[in-house]
Amino acid sequence: MFQIERVKTLIPGFDELVKGGIPKRNIVLLSGGPGTGKSIFAQQFIFNGLKQGERGVLVTLEEHPVQLRRNMLAFGWDVKKFEEENKFAIVDAFTGGVGETAKKEKYVVRSTDDIPELLDVIRQSIKDIGAERIVIDSISTLYLTKPVLARGVLMQLKRVISGLGATAIFVSQVSVTERGFGGPGVEHAVDGIIRLDLDEINGELVRSLIIWKMRGTAHDMHRRPFEITDKGIIVDSKKIVKMRGEFSKILEG
Amino acid sequence: MFQIERVKTLIPGFDELVKGGIPKRNIVLLSGGPGTGKSIFAQQFIFNGLKQGERGVLVTLEEHPVQLRRNMLAFGWDVKKFEEENKFAIVDAFTGGVGETAKKEKYVVRSTDDIPELLDVIRQSIKDIGAERIVIDSISTLYLTKPVLARGVLMQLKRVISGLGATAIFVSQVSVTERGFGGPGVEHAVDGIIRLDLDEINGELVRSLIIWKMRGTAHDMHRRPFEITDKGIIVDSKKIVKMRGEFSKILEG
Amino acid sequence: MFQIERVKTLIPGFDELVKGGIPKRNIVLLSGGPGTGKSIFAQQFIFNGLKQGERGVLVTLEEHPVQLRRNMLAFGWDVKKFEEENKFAIVDAFTGGVGETAKKEKYVVRSTDDIPELLDVIRQSIKDIGAERIVIDSISTLYLTKPVLARGVLMQLKRVISGLGATAIFVSQVSVTERGFGGPGVEHAVDGIIRLDLDEINGELVRSLIIWKMRGTAHDMHRRPFEITDKGIIVDSKKIVKMRGEFSKILEG
Amino acid sequence: MFQIERVKTLIPGFDELVKGGIPKRNIVLLSGGPGTGKSIFAQQFIFNGLKQGERGVLVTLEEHPVQLRRNMLAFGWDVKKFEEENKFAIVDAFTGGVGETAKKEKYVVRSTDDIPELLDVIRQSIKDIGAERIVIDSISTLYLTKPVLARGVLMQLKRVISGLGATAIFVSQVSVTERGFGGPGVEHAVDGIIRLDLDEINGELVRSLIIWKMRGTAHDMHRRPFEITDKGIIVDSKKIVKMRGEFSKILEG
Amino acid sequence: MFQIERVKTLIPGFDELVKGGIPKRNIVLLSGGPGTGKSIFAQQFIFNGLKQGERGVLVTLEEHPVQLRRNMLAFGWDVKKFEEENKFAIVDAFTGGVGETAKKEKYVVRSTDDIPELLDVIRQSIKDIGAERIVIDSISTLYLTKPVLARGVLMQLKRVISGLGATAIFVSQVSVTERGFGGPGVEHAVDGIIRLDLDEINGELVRSLIIWKMRGTAHDMHRRPFEITDKGIIVDSKKIVKMRGEFSKILEG
Amino acid sequence: MFQIERVKTLIPGFDELVKGGIPKRNIVLLSGGPGTGKSIFAQQFIFNGLKQGERGVLVTLEEHPVQLRRNMLAFGWDVKKFEEENKFAIVDAFTGGVGETAKKEKYVVRSTDDIPELLDVIRQSIKDIGAERIVIDSISTLYLTKPVLARGVLMQLKRVISGLGATAIFVSQVSVTERGFGGPGVEHAVDGIIRLDLDEINGELVRSLIIWKMRGTAHDMHRRPFEITDKGIIVDSKKIVKMRGEFSKILEG
Repeated sequence: MFQIERVKTLIPGFDELVKGGIPKRNIVLLSGGPGTGKSIFAQQFIFNGLKQGERGVLVTLEEHPVQLRRNMLAFGWDVKKFEEENKFAIVDAFTGGVGETAKKEKYVVRSTDDIPELLDVIRQSIKDIGAERIVIDSISTLYLTKPVLARGVLMQLKRVISGLGATAIFVSQVSVTERGFGGPGVEHAVDGIIRLDLDEINGELVRSLIIWKMRGTAHDMHRRPFEITDKGIIVDSKKIVKMRGEFSKILEG
Repeated sequence: MFQIERVKTLIPGFDELVKGGIPKRNIVLLSGGPGTGKSIFAQQFIFNGLKQGERGVLVTLEEHPVQLRRNMLAFGWDVKKFEEENKFAIVDAFTGGVGETAKKEKYVVRSTDDIPELLDVIRQSIKDIGAERIVIDSISTLYLTKPVLARGVLMQLKRVISGLGATAIFVSQVSVTERGFGGPGVEHAVDGIIRLDLDEINGELVRSLIIWKMRGTAHDMHRRPFEITDKGIIVDSKKIVKMRGEFSKILEG
Repeated sequence: MFQIERVKTLIPGFDELVKGGIPKRNIVLLSGGPGTGKSIFAQQFIFNGLKQGERGVLVTLEEHPVQLRRNMLAFGWDVKKFEEENKFAIVDAFTGGVGETAKKEKYVVRSTDDIPELLDVIRQSIKDIGAERIVIDSISTLYLTKPVLARGVLMQLKRVISGLGATAIFVSQVSVTERGFGGPGVEHAVDGIIRLDLDEINGELVRSLIIWKMRGTAHDMHRRPFEITDKGIIVDSKKIVKMRGEFSKILEG
Repeated sequence: MFQIERVKTLIPGFDELVKGGIPKRNIVLLSGGPGTGKSIFAQQFIFNGLKQGERGVLVTLEEHPVQLRRNMLAFGWDVKKFEEENKFAIVDAFTGGVGETAKKEKYVVRSTDDIPELLDVIRQSIKDIGAERIVIDSISTLYLTKPVLARGVLMQLKRVISGLGATAIFVSQVSVTERGFGGPGVEHAVDGIIRLDLDEINGELVRSLIIWKMRGTAHDMHRRPFEITDKGIIVDSKKIVKMRGEFSKILEG
Repeated sequence: MFQIERVKTLIPGFDELVKGGIPKRNIVLLSGGPGTGKSIFAQQFIFNGLKQGERGVLVTLEEHPVQLRRNMLAFGWDVKKFEEENKFAIVDAFTGGVGETAKKEKYVVRSTDDIPELLDVIRQSIKDIGAERIVIDSISTLYLTKPVLARGVLMQLKRVISGLGATAIFVSQVSVTERGFGGPGVEHAVDGIIRLDLDEINGELVRSLIIWKMRGTAHDMHRRPFEITDKGIIVDSKKIVKMRGEFSKILEG
Repeated sequence: MFQIERVKTLIPGFDELVKGGIPKRNIVLLSGGPGTGKSIFAQQFIFNGLKQGERGVLVTLEEHPVQLRRNMLAFGWDVKKFEEENKFAIVDAFTGGVGETAKKEKYVVRSTDDIPELLDVIRQSIKDIGAERIVIDSISTLYLTKPVLARGVLMQLKRVISGLGATAIFVSQVSVTERGFGGPGVEHAVDGIIRLDLDEINGELVRSLIIWKMRGTAHDMHRRPFEITDKGIIVDSKKIVKMRGEFSKILEG
């Protein structure tokens, strides 16, 4: 049997949950409600790659590229140098190219309704950079008001990215009350699902994550607490957050 | 790492929940059901700014400007002087310019269906005043019957306001039975979410708030009780309101 | 600080729940399921006003004016004299002017689909009578099959009535299983919400009310039992009806 | 105060729940799921009237008139004589006049989509018979696929029937899982609501009824068990069926 | 009072639940989720009739006639002889007459969208055979994608079948999570409802049935367990399966 | 009575749950949420057949054929040899024939919207190979955005496949929160239903399966745990996973 290649997130406590790293070429859905830390996780994944020489592309659909760089800097993640060395690129699918600062961006998607254009710009940026890690934050934006398109859009992105040999995190925004991961068309089409949660327990907000699926590797089967510190996410891979809900099942010999 | 700038609400007990204040330029969703105190919180945020020299604009979509001034006065918040000194402005997006009293308003939006006009008037008022604090009460009005527009409208407002360097509170009205914050298109696009609640517990109505997310700062992770007094809102930042609901999770070592 | 003007309902046990009366000019939503006593509450509010010289208008959308007078008489509330003295008027938005008895009505709305006509007739009747108290029973009828219109209709009524300085009760019909007050467009637009409930508890029907919001005054924060007697509603402002439901929260020091 | 006229159902155990009978001219919604005994209750109401000289009309929308007579006969309720003496009539809104036996019916509604025709035939039959008791079984049929019409249809029927001085039972079919009475447009428009229930309790089906509202009279406020015997319905007005559900409220002094 | 005629199912343990048999001419809805044994119950009803000389027609909408015969044979129910003697017929509303084997079928419905054709073929087959027992498996197929048609289709079938004096079982497919019987338009229009259930209880699948209504006879009011053996269904009319769910009611003296 | 033919899955622990194997010609729905192991089960079913000389066809709608072979190889299931010997074929309904590698595929469906083309290619591949085992992964893809087509598509596939004498597994994707198997049109049309589950129990993910129905054979009636190992699925046919949910029923003597 062949030896699987893995991409290390280098997020403290996370990689040991997936036997050392995310299997290469996997498209992983990072799903969670508002305030759960999805963007931070994805940016940390990219920056940790850059630090050890793995190039990356981050497609931003929710945040101005300038604000995005500022947000990353707040965690000490300065991407400037990597951008200058062509080891990292931001694909600006937020401004539509409108505004003074937007004119300085290299990769701009005019309209996110134009999926072929989006695919072209992403493909070009990956090739230019030689990117091994891709983040799309968020894919939900692409079909928010047209859920019927979700699977089609996701499949096209998947074809482009895995065709180029890259490993990707697709941020999926769900409503705070939604227990799914972004709809059946999305959940089944990806290679992995990581769920981030923020739950109120006895008047306190608690963060946890669980790996729901990960093709190509065994993975941890527990819900793990994590913190968002000023250096990013730290997962506690030893503790378990237990959920008591509508269903519970027990195993009997 | 840079030092973050903060905007103090000066609402008693609140600022300590966000490490001293809301990070500057943040767009904060203030979400809650009817009767939870959203408008009072937002007006108090504006008036407390005025008192210490921070200028503000309040966009009213639900209440006649005359009635709004009257409501604020009932808490002892007299904005007249600040309006005369061009330190505060009300943008009237309620009357459509119809009626005798409406003719005296300086900033009037003819139709709230005309988003470009709305954006223009808001932009102009912020520039004229030099406003640092903005309240829109409520953004829900803009897409109540057209939820599919919610994210688009919010993104445009966000671009205008953060482009001018202001910090904003967007009031989001949810139904009394709704546990979300205003829909996925809205929840994910803002920088912060403060949820106000009014719950019947054993035959008594109890007020509480919780900060669900706040980009750019650590924040309190507990549900806190608050009161509405004749001087406005007072938060008890020490007590916790515990919720017992469908889900509960526990942490295990 | 100014002294607030109040309108006494004179419903036994109610006014002490709102510090003496409903703040003048408030538009109050009186919300409840079938059989909860909404119409009785509203008629009692009107008649108690008439008895002490405060003039009123009652807009009937659900009941024939003749039947309405009969219903009120069953509680001993004889409006005839007040109608003859032009101190009280019924606006007939029920018959459409069709039928022999309808021809005797002074204020008739031909079609409730014609909101401008409805507004005109209401405005005229309030001016003619010099009405200080208004009841619309029910506003739900106006948008039952077109919920998207709810907020618009309510806002127009609010403008007319508060523009004329009157205080109003808008009856809102909700389904027996609905826990809201009539939809987000309605709940947030009014100045007060009184909820009437009829619940089956251990095989017995129990009546209770709770004041969910009331702008311009502090108000009681408890669920109170009430009875419908042959003299109308009597609220027990001392007892509490405790609800045990899906959610409960507790306060911890 | 005037003395109220009442119509006795003469269903054993029922009239004492409404202080002696249903107030005259009331339109009462008889609501329940499949198999709860709605048609039996309504037929018993009609036949008991006939026995003591009160004339009646039964509008059948769900059952062939021939089958309806057969069903009634199974309980010993032979309407033949009353039909011959013009003291009772069936309005056939089932067959559309198609079929041999249908041709013998006197009052036939060609199409239940044609509400004006339906109203005409009902009006004529009530006048011909001099009917004091009316049953429509069921009104739900009239708007099953067009719920938006429900209130309009019900209001028109109400006007015709109460205009002629009759007292009516409108059978309302709800789904087995539905806790309401037939929708907000219907629940609020009627003068009374009687709910029949069939519930599985610990593997056994139990019948109960509760009077949810009844204008013009005080009424019992408890859930009462009843049986369907070969002589019709018998209510036990002394026992209580207690429901334990999602909500429970308790009263505290 | 007349003596009621009954049709014996001869399914072990069932007839005693309905005082000896289903009242003749009744249209009975046999409702249940996937895998609950609906088709087996219906086939057993037909075959048991044939064995004692009562002729039958089975309308198949879900299964190829050839496969249907094979399925019945697996339980030892060989219909071949009865078909040859014109005592039993299958109405093929499955193949649309397409395929080699389909050409051998005598009663074929070309398109199930053509309800008049379906009614004609069914009417003809019943007359030809002189059928007393009819099964339609399933009626749900006829309105699966057009639920608004459900009641209309069912009423037409009911008229044809009861007009010819036959007794029928209409198989109604509901989703595994649905607690109703097939929608309000269907539940109320039939003369009887038998519900088959398959529930997971503590990790084990348990079969039970309950008779929800049966016009023209008293019936058992308990949930009874049953088994599917290689000879068909066997009901245990003595045991009770108790359900513990959201609601429970208790009776108090 | 005839002896039933069975198809052995040879998945450890599974066949004993169905008395030795799936009845030949059965169309079995393999239903589950994301990450439950549906594709692995289906591939294992195919490969185990190949190993003992039973030929197979796998229709891939979610995964590139190249990736599919790679996925299978990760479990040690090398299909290359069988493809070369014409004992196994992949029907590529994923690429649409686009891309270099796709050109090497023998059976390609250009568009999955073209159901007749899909049926033709499947029919041809089954005939060419002489396939006895068929997998379609997944059928849900065919009607994801057009649920109204589900039953029609499934019925056509069923006719083609069972007409050719093959036994099939249809993978059905359901949302993670959905308790059904893929909708009523699908659940009732298949011969068997196997449900795979992945549930969070006290912070741990647990895998289990249950056989909900299987025509033509008795089957195990318990929920059984299983593992996904690097050799594929292993079912523990002795242990039971007990579910505690909304409903529980108990049996009483």
